[in-house]
Amino acid sequence: MLIVKKFGGTSVADKEKIFRAANRCIEEYQKGNDVVVVLSAMGKFTDELVAMARDITDKPPKREMDMLFTVGEQMSVALMAMAMHKLGVPAVSLNAFQVAMHTTSTYGNARLKRIDTERIRNELDSRKIVIVTGFQGVNKYDDYTTLGRGGSDTTAVALAAALRADACEIYTDVDGVYTADPRLVPKARKLKEITYDEMLDLATLGAGVLHNRSVEMAKKYGVPLVVRSSMNDSEGTVLKEVTTVERMLISGVALDRDADRIAVIGVKDEPGIAFKLFDVLAKKNINVDIILQSIGREGTKDISFTVQDGDLEEAVAELEKHQERLTFQKLQVEKRVAKLSIVGAGMMSNPGVAAKMFECLYNQNVNISMIATSEIRVTVLIQEKDAERAMNAVHDAFGLAD
Amino acid sequence: MLIVKKFGGTSVADKEKIFRAANRCIEEYQKGNDVVVVLSAMGKFTDELVAMARDITDKPPKREMDMLFTVGEQMSVALMAMAMHKLGVPAVSLNAFQVAMHTTSTYGNARLKRIDTERIRNELDSRKIVIVTGFQGVNKYDDYTTLGRGGSDTTAVALAAALRADACEIYTDVDGVYTADPRLVPKARKLKEITYDEMLDLATLGAGVLHNRSVEMAKKYGVPLVVRSSMNDSEGTVLKEVTTVERMLISGVALDRDADRIAVIGVKDEPGIAFKLFDVLAKKNINVDIILQSIGREGTKDISFTVQDGDLEEAVAELEKHQERLTFQKLQVEKRVAKLSIVGAGMMSNPGVAAKMFECLYNQNVNISMIATSEIRVTVLIQEKDAERAMNAVHDAFGLAD
Repeated sequence: MLIVKKFGGTSVADKEKIFRAANRCIEEYQKGNDVVVVLSAMGKFTDELVAMARDITDKPPKREMDMLFTVGEQMSVALMAMAMHKLGVPAVSLNAFQVAMHTTSTYGNARLKRIDTERIRNELDSRKIVIVTGFQGVNKYDDYTTLGRGGSDTTAVALAAALRADACEIYTDVDGVYTADPRLVPKARKLKEITYDEMLDLATLGAGVLHNRSVEMAKKYGVPLVVRSSMNDSEGTVLKEVTTVERMLISGVALDRDADRIAVIGVKDEPGIAFKLFDVLAKKNINVDIILQSIGREGTKDISFTVQDGDLEEAVAELEKHQERLTFQKLQVEKRVAKLSIVGAGMMSNPGVAAKMFECLYNQNVNISMIATSEIRVTVLIQEKDAERAMNAVHDAFGLAD
Repeated sequence: MLIVKKFGGTSVADKEKIFRAANRCIEEYQKGNDVVVVLSAMGKFTDELVAMARDITDKPPKREMDMLFTVGEQMSVALMAMAMHKLGVPAVSLNAFQVAMHTTSTYGNARLKRIDTERIRNELDSRKIVIVTGFQGVNKYDDYTTLGRGGSDTTAVALAAALRADACEIYTDVDGVYTADPRLVPKARKLKEITYDEMLDLATLGAGVLHNRSVEMAKKYGVPLVVRSSMNDSEGTVLKEVTTVERMLISGVALDRDADRIAVIGVKDEPGIAFKLFDVLAKKNINVDIILQSIGREGTKDISFTVQDGDLEEAVAELEKHQERLTFQKLQVEKRVAKLSIVGAGMMSNPGVAAKMFECLYNQNVNISMIATSEIRVTVLIQEKDAERAMNAVHDAFGLAD
């Protein structure tokens, strides 16, 4: 068997943790399996690098930021290789140049295009554990790139796909995917299995265990993905195309408190305005979510949508810059609204799910200001003050608790 | 003109120093020159990396040490590029993979074999300052290597040779090559010029401004080398094949207090013993200096030589292991003896130089226990307690003072 194991920054933050991770890999290796390890930068080292760069300039060029960032994972892999040697097991560390981890050319947010597997195969054939830098790649200009948030997960899944690995295990500081964030919902329960699609919706909606890009890739290439804890031996959660355990109506409840709502008031009720509006934002790479458009009255309408908190300022500035062309009268901003979502492949065949959620919120006296749905999720926008109470109530209502 | 500028670790140790170095490079660039910058790791960062590795294992594999070490220079070059961008000048950082800095395969002590100049030329052609990681290379296995002590100087000289640069400037924390170490000889004077050969002897003998490997390379390829201070604008010292300034008898006085003397007593006076003895040491990579062999008496002789202090223990152990084959009766060790040398291309045509040195030491009542000479230097072994006094006296005797 060939197993790819990925350890995040907290799982290699110090000597003790490096050795703990090393031992897990060695256990697998000693069963006769081939082991490829993907590592992130240690603990908060990436933050330290950011601080160093900011000390030099408030606008570091992205190419040079990536050149700086990539040292983080290189330190991790070198130290991990040393730990394995210390434990008597042959290991070799490889960076993005050595693997040949080809990406698109966008610095800071590149996408993997192709991974050469020859070097890794050769090292595995000589019975070494191969330790690869996560998060980083090389573009067509022969420059370092980084993969953006959750990049090391993506590296691990991509390697597992390229090597046709039998499993890809993501070690993290939680021991699996839960029906809800246990810090917010004390009764939350760990899931044994979840579908890629459910996980995608949970990741997008702020469950934060896996970055959606890595889940998309796992789905695309059918990589069997496991999320488990680097601190204990508990089983973790398996991601698959179709789950085989007892089918529940929904798999989880997710909360995103990091959203702001922008209402664009008094837009002329003519074709193309909405397109122009979202085009202006898309050009600045601002993602919008939950869009609501009022029915036209007296020749005008209102368009509301949410953006992530970090994008609010730029979004407002961009819209104001184009006020005339976008024909609106004014903007209204509501900061820190909460997006509460339920996710579950089960709801495709159960039309009553959304209604059940609304009923629960009504019983809790929680006001819903916007609604968005997909095949496997229902999201509502509610007041931040109601968020945690509503989340627990919904979690209970769908019988997700232990 | 194409100028290569190399800044050592102390010259890029913090933000202020990075900007100072950046400004020096930009000055050159703004004269219309092409500028290639070679950097070491910041300040004591390499020591920090060593400490991290030692924390993991007391015997880190050399390949992985090099993988770890190379992050140091990569951080320096990325931050330097950011500083130059901040100052409004286009710059690009390159590591050993990006340049294609081919070395032999010995980890920790590789030698440069070939440098591809295409990428650097392209970047220079687009009028960028090119910032290259010193000290590091890539071997035929596509692994990082490091060049050993003084490696960044070697990188700079090699780049200057490969690019046929008009000058290679080594910026350091001293402002040039002196007639003697100013900390020991208060009257020491900075030299305007010095020959490669003189510098080689001074470097070997502990003047410590430039590593001899870089000087050898500069001599071999005729690279015009300048040693100057990163802290002030003073002129520095120029290294050339033949110096053109007023010819002095000697150029400098060097002192090495880091030597130990080993006397191998009672060796059988038969052919091949000396060869066997030094062969035993050479196989352990132990360099010996100043060798003295007594005239044979009663079928035995004594062989004395010096080794660097760090090698003493291993040298003694090796000799004892082979005592029978090497036929000696016992070893005598004298720790911390001082090697005092005078160096000067001028002595080739002036036979009285050695005698003048001995006379001076006699006048100072300094006992000489061993003597070694080459075409351009005379070295004597003296007591450590006499070393500094003797050094100053010799410096005066040859009229080197200000």
